[in-house]
Amino acid sequence: MNAENVQYPTLQRSPTLSDRVTDSVLQLITSNALKPGDRLPSERDLGVRFGVSRTVVREALRSLAAKGVLDVRSGSGAIVARVDVDTASQALRLFVQGSREGADGDRVEYEQINDVREMLETRVARIAARAAQDTDLDSLRDLHDRMKAAKTDVELSSSLDVAFHRGIAVATHNPLFVVMLDSIEPALLEIRRKTLGSPGRPNRALRAHAQILERIAARDPEGAEQAMNDHLADSRAVWRRLGGTVS
Amino acid sequence: MNAENVQYPTLQRSPTLSDRVTDSVLQLITSNALKPGDRLPSERDLGVRFGVSRTVVREALRSLAAKGVLDVRSGSGAIVARVDVDTASQALRLFVQGSREGADGDRVEYEQINDVREMLETRVARIAARAAQDTDLDSLRDLHDRMKAAKTDVELSSSLDVAFHRGIAVATHNPLFVVMLDSIEPALLEIRRKTLGSPGRPNRALRAHAQILERIAARDPEGAEQAMNDHLADSRAVWRRLGGTVS
Repeated sequence: MNAENVQYPTLQRSPTLSDRVTDSVLQLITSNALKPGDRLPSERDLGVRFGVSRTVVREALRSLAAKGVLDVRSGSGAIVARVDVDTASQALRLFVQGSREGADGDRVEYEQINDVREMLETRVARIAARAAQDTDLDSLRDLHDRMKAAKTDVELSSSLDVAFHRGIAVATHNPLFVVMLDSIEPALLEIRRKTLGSPGRPNRALRAHAQILERIAARDPEGAEQAMNDHLADSRAVWRRLGGTVS
Repeated sequence: MNAENVQYPTLQRSPTLSDRVTDSVLQLITSNALKPGDRLPSERDLGVRFGVSRTVVREALRSLAAKGVLDVRSGSGAIVARVDVDTASQALRLFVQGSREGADGDRVEYEQINDVREMLETRVARIAARAAQDTDLDSLRDLHDRMKAAKTDVELSSSLDVAFHRGIAVATHNPLFVVMLDSIEPALLEIRRKTLGSPGRPNRALRAHAQILERIAARDPEGAEQAMNDHLADSRAVWRRLGGTVS
């Protein structure tokens, strides 16, 4: 499926018949010929169409079910999975968490998560300044006030901090931004637990949030992006001072 | 799990016991107390720890397995899933494809995919100019030459075009960028099939690719980002002229 992926240059075994059936089904889904919710033909029918045995088909279906691509219920055949927003976020989260323990080439380091974070959050702040509705602004103000009230409770402040940033993503009204930000959330929460324990940082973070919120409410995309950028630069500096790896 | 998610304001039923077990297990994974590959205690043990019946535990495990969070094999108990890069991409793709047919609030429109694309690809071009290795540049040059040779074969050009852009993401050596770009790939391929059929566009795209490649090879992050930005602006303009929705 990822023939152009030169990033994982481990030598591949040549594809088995069942791999080729797996790839064909993925291709049909990717090209929208098969859509989420569609029911696949029976194993026997699929075998006839692909010109392979039922055993080969069964193996392919099992591997697609393990990837979460198909829902296979006994008796009712295989259905192309509907992946909701939570399931998609969860898969990305598990990938990020698993990768942080992985082998060298695959491992996702904090600096890489920070790169993704800066990309996402600066763009999200800019778009939120165009797309936010009054209810989004109310909810951001509420989170901001609660974080102010949380004061020295690092655990509560950290959660409210994550929630504030997530609220900005929600205010874009583009669920893709929310899923992407959610996928790195556990890693970001860990970073915050460290940085918000650093003297002076909670107050600086609160002032920065106030500034971001003010620019979003003023419908100022460039200002919101700039305010977010400054805030994240400060966060990265604190985190490096506390012993984060320097890229 | 998404208490702060104000985007889907459907009234929620109050969580059942099994929902609460599900959330607790997710929390343990998110906080890294349970890591990918870890085996969970038996249903009986979990029941005792959570103070609930085995039936409640079984329901929770089933729902976590359906979300792809646990691998449940009969006889050997439940294991926290290892999610590889392909599985994570696939889940995001299925979400994007499913969402494009969803109800109003959840639907992901082309303009939203384009917003994500612009964010990803401009940043990726910038980082690739810092991180690309010689083999990455060779592979990009090869894809560029093959796209030049493909000329008026729109299907082949479109695939090589997608592969060229993906190659830039690979050259960042940050797998998160690759996963995120892969998740919108099927939608982008559809856009390209349209735009590359438009007179003049294939040549303009090739010239833009040459420019991007040149800036990456020159280790010029700002130049690479700017060249990518111009290229995507042209693509969006062509696509809108061909009848894409205007945001």
